[in-house]
Amino acid sequence: MTNRLEQQMKFILEVDKLKFVNRQSYLSDGNRKENDAEHSWHLALMASLLYEYAEKELDLAKTMTMVLIHDIVEIDAGDTYAYDEAGNATKREREVKAAERIFNILPEDQALKMRNMWEEFEACESPEAKFAHVLDNAQPLMLNDATDGRAWRERKIKKSQVMQRNEKTKEGSKEMGDYVQEIIDRNVENGNLKDA
Amino acid sequence: MTNRLEQQMKFILEVDKLKFVNRQSYLSDGNRKENDAEHSWHLALMASLLYEYAEKELDLAKTMTMVLIHDIVEIDAGDTYAYDEAGNATKREREVKAAERIFNILPEDQALKMRNMWEEFEACESPEAKFAHVLDNAQPLMLNDATDGRAWRERKIKKSQVMQRNEKTKEGSKEMGDYVQEIIDRNVENGNLKDA
Repeated sequence: MTNRLEQQMKFILEVDKLKFVNRQSYLSDGNRKENDAEHSWHLALMASLLYEYAEKELDLAKTMTMVLIHDIVEIDAGDTYAYDEAGNATKREREVKAAERIFNILPEDQALKMRNMWEEFEACESPEAKFAHVLDNAQPLMLNDATDGRAWRERKIKKSQVMQRNEKTKEGSKEMGDYVQEIIDRNVENGNLKDA
Repeated sequence: MTNRLEQQMKFILEVDKLKFVNRQSYLSDGNRKENDAEHSWHLALMASLLYEYAEKELDLAKTMTMVLIHDIVEIDAGDTYAYDEAGNATKREREVKAAERIFNILPEDQALKMRNMWEEFEACESPEAKFAHVLDNAQPLMLNDATDGRAWRERKIKKSQVMQRNEKTKEGSKEMGDYVQEIIDRNVENGNLKDA
């Protein structure tokens, strides 16, 4: 085995740990919470099926790779719940440190490419990053909607928090923005989200 | 929400069930078995990082989509262990029935596209399908190697079975064929695979 392939396979084995990082959303059967690898699989499949709705033309393979790696820093930094204010204050610092360690397991060219792709996701400015965020925000809403808002109810989440989280969704995709709005409105109506 | 997006989101929610289908490989920490969604995430990421080793030029986005959907039929048909002879005798029939039901939740054009992509994977003839199989075979070997061959030892798997499973790996990628052979040889030597 070449040194290059050895480095690549070392990274591929290391990121197996993404399967141990649990998120706050429950799976559609409500039996357990989703982990980051499952979530990332779902986003990549959504990218392939829904990119027709992106506001700007995008590179599909790049968008898919971006969502597959967007949470890898959480192997070290942990999942920070979207509505955890204290956690979000230290999130960036923890995640940058994680990116330094994890992506640098790869050969230099790929370490740089993946690190840059993660930074591009974080900046949320390119067409690929904007659409990746649309998916990253819509997917947990879909699961919350399918599980009678369980994760929202457990943490008494307010409509305004979900609206703020989705303030750029329409910018990335008008249709997906409408989809997200329908879910929010329905879950305020049925009491899963606090109307505040 | 348009009817088209409604059908797409119905499919995307339905395939959340892939996260409930367990495979035979243990995760790298040995604590539990891997599920199909996690496995598919891993393959798509491997496609993006390793396609430089494919013997024939391939469409990366297509290869990634193929591995993301290659196990979706197992939502109905269940996971058939690579070395389960009885299960493999009825596998095709069970999986075709599953493909009929699940892919047809999508709008007609995408149902056809995904169904054809799954059939293309099964036929293992196109560059994308050949490389997808390389990844699908190499990833569980990596996990078995990382967990002291636990799943192999539990089922007393023989070298010849793993060799047969990987008979086309070199055709899809010489380098990945060498990687797989190194793992097989090491695990015969340390007794994780029976030398038969």
